[in-house]
Amino acid sequence: MTARLWIPGRLRPGDRVAVVAPSGPVDPVRLAHGRHVLAQIGLRVEVMPRVLNRRGYLAGSDAGRAADIQEAWCDPEIRAVICARGGYGATRILELFDWPAMAAARPKILLGSSDVTALHQAFAVRLGVASCFGPMPACQTLGDPEGPDADSLSHLYSSLFEGEEPGAVAGDRVIVPGYAEGPLTGGNLSLLASLCGTPYSLRSEGHIVLLEDVGEEPYRVDRMLTQLLQAGCLDGAIGFVLGSWERCGDPIPVLMDRLAPLGVPIIAGLPIGHGVPQFTAWMGADAVIDTESCSLTCLFRDPATAL
Amino acid sequence: MTARLWIPGRLRPGDRVAVVAPSGPVDPVRLAHGRHVLAQIGLRVEVMPRVLNRRGYLAGSDAGRAADIQEAWCDPEIRAVICARGGYGATRILELFDWPAMAAARPKILLGSSDVTALHQAFAVRLGVASCFGPMPACQTLGDPEGPDADSLSHLYSSLFEGEEPGAVAGDRVIVPGYAEGPLTGGNLSLLASLCGTPYSLRSEGHIVLLEDVGEEPYRVDRMLTQLLQAGCLDGAIGFVLGSWERCGDPIPVLMDRLAPLGVPIIAGLPIGHGVPQFTAWMGADAVIDTESCSLTCLFRDPATAL
Repeated sequence: MTARLWIPGRLRPGDRVAVVAPSGPVDPVRLAHGRHVLAQIGLRVEVMPRVLNRRGYLAGSDAGRAADIQEAWCDPEIRAVICARGGYGATRILELFDWPAMAAARPKILLGSSDVTALHQAFAVRLGVASCFGPMPACQTLGDPEGPDADSLSHLYSSLFEGEEPGAVAGDRVIVPGYAEGPLTGGNLSLLASLCGTPYSLRSEGHIVLLEDVGEEPYRVDRMLTQLLQAGCLDGAIGFVLGSWERCGDPIPVLMDRLAPLGVPIIAGLPIGHGVPQFTAWMGADAVIDTESCSLTCLFRDPATAL
Repeated sequence: MTARLWIPGRLRPGDRVAVVAPSGPVDPVRLAHGRHVLAQIGLRVEVMPRVLNRRGYLAGSDAGRAADIQEAWCDPEIRAVICARGGYGATRILELFDWPAMAAARPKILLGSSDVTALHQAFAVRLGVASCFGPMPACQTLGDPEGPDADSLSHLYSSLFEGEEPGAVAGDRVIVPGYAEGPLTGGNLSLLASLCGTPYSLRSEGHIVLLEDVGEEPYRVDRMLTQLLQAGCLDGAIGFVLGSWERCGDPIPVLMDRLAPLGVPIIAGLPIGHGVPQFTAWMGADAVIDTESCSLTCLFRDPATAL
């Protein structure tokens, strides 16, 4: 059983948050829309200076992307670091952070999903901090010119803000029945596979594991699950939550084939990961999966005392 | 430095070889052509009983694919185990072999490439045996209805048969100049990434590393190289040989970006991996890369005494 992660204090209206770009290039129009949405829910949004940089499939240089994140994390006035979008590039910067400096800063909320799985894993390992897997401002769910998806925004709000209680997220299919309660881990399957063998490898012992992906054929899903199994990354998992599998064909047969033999509860079809709506999950905080209601509930508790 | 691998005795005219299907489903027409080609170079070819089985993207059940390979490997009359084709599925069967039984059998030649990288790695780790990375009978290079590619077949012949000396394989680009001599390892990049964190992880210490892939966008090549670097799989590599990158866009910038900082010789554009022609490389045997001639030479020496 790994050590419990620190759950950072949640947000209050008027809090300052910083937008960063750890991965792929950011569309300025989408970002403007998403920024406006964050402002509308009461946040003072600062866009870090290098967010609109571009270098091929990356949002600028590795050093620049890492610097924005580190500066935002270490700024005591910033209460949350919000990733603009995913794509690819977060694994490239994991070795560039000054982890001791970041560990010395007050823990705060990291929000992002998809490629940001690499940061969730690394922040858990290096900083011991829980983080938020949810929609990002320069993606369609929040940053669409037609306006944000209301359900996704409402769930994000209740996940981020103090005193709120995010509702259960319902799936559409029970794969293995049962009940499990424990901290949540996991994220995007491609990223979890890409972290195998590195210092940021998934460790599932005692955890409920969230898995989702986008644009991966079933044979690739198979290969990645097989890797996680052979690397021991799923050893001791107490349950699985299967999120969205956009453009992955029908991955349910291979997910069943590889995961059902582990003999722990599995629910599928939760709108977490990619697509609209897109609900939020607290990685590292306690959660419950219950196959009677086919849902995931984050048992979020605000820290008893402010830091 | 890992232990030296055992180099199995090479083939003689009239030797019996067995065709197996560790990965994806096999096209019977291509296989018939490829089988004929193997017979024409003097081999007595046995197709194992389950080679034409099918189960979705796999050549039949995991147990069946593994059983064919194990039976062929443990049959003292069989002098080489030849994989019909790649695809996906070899990593699924690595835990199904009776490794002690296979270690008790006389080492023989394993031939295959692409997905078979998983078997090369596993046979090196579990059996301590060198193996042959080259074209396969149910693939285009050997199994085309128009006949095999002559250069590929000739190079395969000289790699497989006793007393022959396979010629140097020339690339088309020097990325980092220099000279290196040592055992060859590596193979298909996707498979090497998929083995990270498992017992069959790539270990490059003291080795020249071959890398090739097919159908992977540059950002995926980046992600896989980043994983190998972060997992320490490339630590101590003494040189790199970059093979074919079919349908990978232009991966040279990312290969340079990730590998050139290691400061060892790198040559690119060698026709090893996918496509036609497709030359053969002995994994685990000594090799030389020399950037003056921009070539890879396998320093193949037949064992002094037959087993």
